[in-house]
Amino acid sequence: MARRKIAKRADDYAQWYQDVIAEGQMAEHSMVRGCMIIKPWGFGIWERIQREMDDRIKATGHENAYFPLFVPKSLFDKEAEHVEGFAPECAVVTHGGDKELEEPLFVRPTSEAIICTTYGKWVESWRDLPIMINQWANVVRWEMRPRLFLRTMEFLWQEGHTAHETHDEAKAEVQTMLDVYAECAENVLAVPVVKGVKSESERFPGAENTYTIEAMMQDGRALQAGTSHDLGQVFSKAYGIEFQGRDGTMQHAWSTSWGVSTRLVGALIMTHGDDAGIVVPPKLAPIQLVIIPIYKGDEQAAEIKPDVEAMMTSLRAAGVRVKADLREYLRPGPKFFEWEKKGVPLRVEYGMRDKEAGNVVLKRRDTGEKQIIPMAELASVAAPLLVTIQNDMLERARARRDANTHVLDDYADFKSRVGDGGFFHMRWCGASACETKVKEDTKATIRCLPHASEPDPGPCAICGEAAEGVRAIFARAY
Amino acid sequence: MARRKIAKRADDYAQWYQDVIAEGQMAEHSMVRGCMIIKPWGFGIWERIQREMDDRIKATGHENAYFPLFVPKSLFDKEAEHVEGFAPECAVVTHGGDKELEEPLFVRPTSEAIICTTYGKWVESWRDLPIMINQWANVVRWEMRPRLFLRTMEFLWQEGHTAHETHDEAKAEVQTMLDVYAECAENVLAVPVVKGVKSESERFPGAENTYTIEAMMQDGRALQAGTSHDLGQVFSKAYGIEFQGRDGTMQHAWSTSWGVSTRLVGALIMTHGDDAGIVVPPKLAPIQLVIIPIYKGDEQAAEIKPDVEAMMTSLRAAGVRVKADLREYLRPGPKFFEWEKKGVPLRVEYGMRDKEAGNVVLKRRDTGEKQIIPMAELASVAAPLLVTIQNDMLERARARRDANTHVLDDYADFKSRVGDGGFFHMRWCGASACETKVKEDTKATIRCLPHASEPDPGPCAICGEAAEGVRAIFARAY
Repeated sequence: MARRKIAKRADDYAQWYQDVIAEGQMAEHSMVRGCMIIKPWGFGIWERIQREMDDRIKATGHENAYFPLFVPKSLFDKEAEHVEGFAPECAVVTHGGDKELEEPLFVRPTSEAIICTTYGKWVESWRDLPIMINQWANVVRWEMRPRLFLRTMEFLWQEGHTAHETHDEAKAEVQTMLDVYAECAENVLAVPVVKGVKSESERFPGAENTYTIEAMMQDGRALQAGTSHDLGQVFSKAYGIEFQGRDGTMQHAWSTSWGVSTRLVGALIMTHGDDAGIVVPPKLAPIQLVIIPIYKGDEQAAEIKPDVEAMMTSLRAAGVRVKADLREYLRPGPKFFEWEKKGVPLRVEYGMRDKEAGNVVLKRRDTGEKQIIPMAELASVAAPLLVTIQNDMLERARARRDANTHVLDDYADFKSRVGDGGFFHMRWCGASACETKVKEDTKATIRCLPHASEPDPGPCAICGEAAEGVRAIFARAY
Repeated sequence: MARRKIAKRADDYAQWYQDVIAEGQMAEHSMVRGCMIIKPWGFGIWERIQREMDDRIKATGHENAYFPLFVPKSLFDKEAEHVEGFAPECAVVTHGGDKELEEPLFVRPTSEAIICTTYGKWVESWRDLPIMINQWANVVRWEMRPRLFLRTMEFLWQEGHTAHETHDEAKAEVQTMLDVYAECAENVLAVPVVKGVKSESERFPGAENTYTIEAMMQDGRALQAGTSHDLGQVFSKAYGIEFQGRDGTMQHAWSTSWGVSTRLVGALIMTHGDDAGIVVPPKLAPIQLVIIPIYKGDEQAAEIKPDVEAMMTSLRAAGVRVKADLREYLRPGPKFFEWEKKGVPLRVEYGMRDKEAGNVVLKRRDTGEKQIIPMAELASVAAPLLVTIQNDMLERARARRDANTHVLDDYADFKSRVGDGGFFHMRWCGASACETKVKEDTKATIRCLPHASEPDPGPCAICGEAAEGVRAIFARAY
């Protein structure tokens, strides 16, 4: 039943990823190709990510709203770059109410077209700006090689869309949201990220600039975990967001958009999981501590169960999300494996011998460390230990990321090492030809030009021409 | 700008409904026929309904998950009554990824087909039951005569889907959720409801029994505010939810489904709104108290604003959601109208004369009642007053509902009175022919056979044959 059948990371990382998702009861493929089913355990984690992110989105002055699932084709067509980027990936509704439609409807792959058109109707004067709205929604992008959480045809996300009076205001908004994403990734998901700007080839279709947070998975590959776009006046011109400025002239608004998705769950799995299954950071764990009582027969049960109840009460009072696994038809061993695979941060074992000693066995999921502590101290030990685990998970991930980050000048050196994974900081002249060459040679792409770096002029690692700015991060990516 | 342009309820109730939604900035029609845009104020109310409902759904043992937006046509076809009921209303995706699909995909109008099929894969033994899952999702049902919140092509809802070992368990679940809906409608939305069972003709397609909560709007028309379905073994047979029972035999599970939607926002508007706009129950108001400072020039502003800050601080400490409307380009009058139209439960006016007296003016949105109280007492008065308002709103709605509820025996009497609106309790023999006759004669339908009623045998009001059970509630409905 609870047999372990998880591939080892070192043997087959891709298979390991599939296995831990299946065994951790996170998600599965549905009978609709490319669409996933997010199971309760996976969705419980996503709900907590949502709540944390939503609080931050509201704290920075945004309100939630909801816009339609469908985008008329003609509306989509108004922004050339945008339609070119997205139309080939769209699901198209051609029939409804038993009739063929006069105009096909695209299932939204993203909502700039419909939201900017709406803003255009709402805005007349500078007094109506800024508009700062977010929506939580499902979007659809046709996907031939789906991977659970990472690349699915339908996925869940939030998309923020704002319109501003000036470009400076819009630019500040774009950075504010990038900071929110980075802070939430690090402090909630325990996933360290690099903030930076995308190269032109990796921009959102139609954007003036795309900013990103890039995380490094355990196999050294990069994962784009969130993006924030400075859309300039491109979409407000295409969709008509015009306002009368303070000086009386008619002007186009400056817009932004930004999003994170269920992909974050994939980032979490590949940052923290181990060969025994997924490992969930305490802040996101639907259950933070699971109690496995160990007993035989009704007599022992009558001795053990009241203590379990008492532990639950004191743990709840200490703010710990706790569950006792009282299933009668499963022995402790399979229960241990099951909760390990789900990644519950702490486990308590409690049987007759523990009772006699007045102790419980407390085990950390992240390190496997066991300690025996007096039962009376469980809550006062567990609550701060969850904080420690959260911090340790971030620090371990950061140390691994840093250990796999390299500053290189020699392209041959890069080519020989890129297969091992990691972030490679190299000088880049800014030419897309060099970007393309790297991709063709190594499958690596420019993940970003990191915000934290200082300019480091010198010869481009690829072509030798002058590279003026910060070093670009090259990596293979999900 | 903030000109009032709301039709009076007595003159044109339908126009009034559209007007208060527009003026209250709740929602609007999008350029996609039938799809609405839920604006931040309306969505803020919906978010609070969601949170309250979600807490209750979880407290009764359910977990959230997420299932695909698309349903393959062949899957839908497996349950004949179900497909007959829903297929004509479906939006159909025929193209994706720039290609025509081999099999069309329906955009989910409800998710029994996909969820029951999935449960069928998850369930092997009685140990895997019950499954108790809910999802918050968007659904699409083609709609030619859309009305904001009440009937839109796309709407937001939650749909719970459970599978059980026995019919008794499933029946208990159906009633538990009906109770949750009723309690939430009354205690959170302040919308009194009648619980009952639907007649066969009004059942969910494929259900063995459909239970409903029915609310009465101010014009006396009924609104079905939530439903809970006993699906018997119909769907588990169609979609293959089979398990090995405790006795070793293979059995089909007993399933249920239940949902409430953004329609609840429509119920709220039509229960509480008045000729000045919508009125939001305090528990759902994104802003519970708005402060309008009254001053001229910088000197007065410097005197008034610190007091406003102090009020906000003490109100927040008392748990009141408060906002100060400090917009410089609007005079107090238009601000009053705007927040009245949005239905904020309490308003504070504060100007120089109030400051000199040490008072504030506090106005209730629901009754229009004004009181002058010492500024120092604002928080201690406002917090309990919000509770009073919430209760008063429910009681007023209940009194109006009861005043418009009639027990009738004479069909001619009913026909002459049904146009005035209201719930009419009449004996009904159970024949669908009588139901149809009522509908043809009067456009009224059977809303439910109420749970709270006792059997009251006598002649059917329509045909005169024996009617054994409880009286049915006849009403015109939204």
